Amino acid sequence: MNPHDLIRSRVTQYLRTIGNGGSADIATLYADDATVEDPVGSEVHVGRAAIEKFYGALDGADCEAELLSLRVAGDTAAFHFRVTTRTVDQTIVVEPIDVMTFDDDAKITSMRAIWSPDDLSIRTR
Amino acid sequence: MNPHDLIRSRVTQYLRTIGNGGSADIATLYADDATVEDPVGSEVHVGRAAIEKFYGALDGADCEAELLSLRVAGDTAAFHFRVTTRTVDQTIVVEPIDVMTFDDDAKITSMRAIWSPDDLSIRTR
Repeated sequence: MNPHDLIRSRVTQYLRTIGNGGSADIATLYADDATVEDPVGSEVHVGRAAIEKFYGALDGADCEAELLSLRVAGDTAAFHFRVTTRTVDQTIVVEPIDVMTFDDDAKITSMRAIWSPDDLSIRTR
Repeated sequence: MNPHDLIRSRVTQYLRTIGNGGSADIATLYADDATVEDPVGSEVHVGRAAIEKFYGALDGADCEAELLSLRVAGDTAAFHFRVTTRTVDQTIVVEPIDVMTFDDDAKITSMRAIWSPDDLSIRTR
């Protein structure tokens, strides 16, 4: 698979894992010394253990992620996607644009998520 | 205007200027020591003079840019947009995702464009 296809495939795997996997599964998609800044401007999580802890918020959540658009250039992907989270009484939808860089094995070396609370849509059932 | 609104307003000004302005007008939206990498992985243009030269390719082109989606976090914007360029016999459409950072005056301090030739659509008239 060429490097861009490998990156595209990793992005779709990432979104599928947000929906179906746990924080440990998501962390395996990252390189050992990767960084996560979500949203941009907040604390940067460094290393796979810190990243797994960050995604721990998703464990047990009813959550799905859907790709809206994806662009790849060099070692970098940017993608617009929708995350829908259902709690007992609410449906929360956010559509960030994430920017990721990748190493030669297409492990994620950095993730920066661009969204703000204004972009959240919350529907009470 | 709050910082995020200022950034949003600068992005729409940037897209309008791609359509209606020249390379000199676009360069004034950038900070003196800004960088442009378009697409990511290609040569980085450093400083306003180099940036104006880079955008020189647009001078005299029949070109319009339309915002598809925009997200802002911290000092960073990511936006998906469509650029349509009409030549004598062709219409060329590309829909990159750009990532920009901004200083306190919302001058652009860096631009990284994520797209690849696969994303170009060329229609011959």
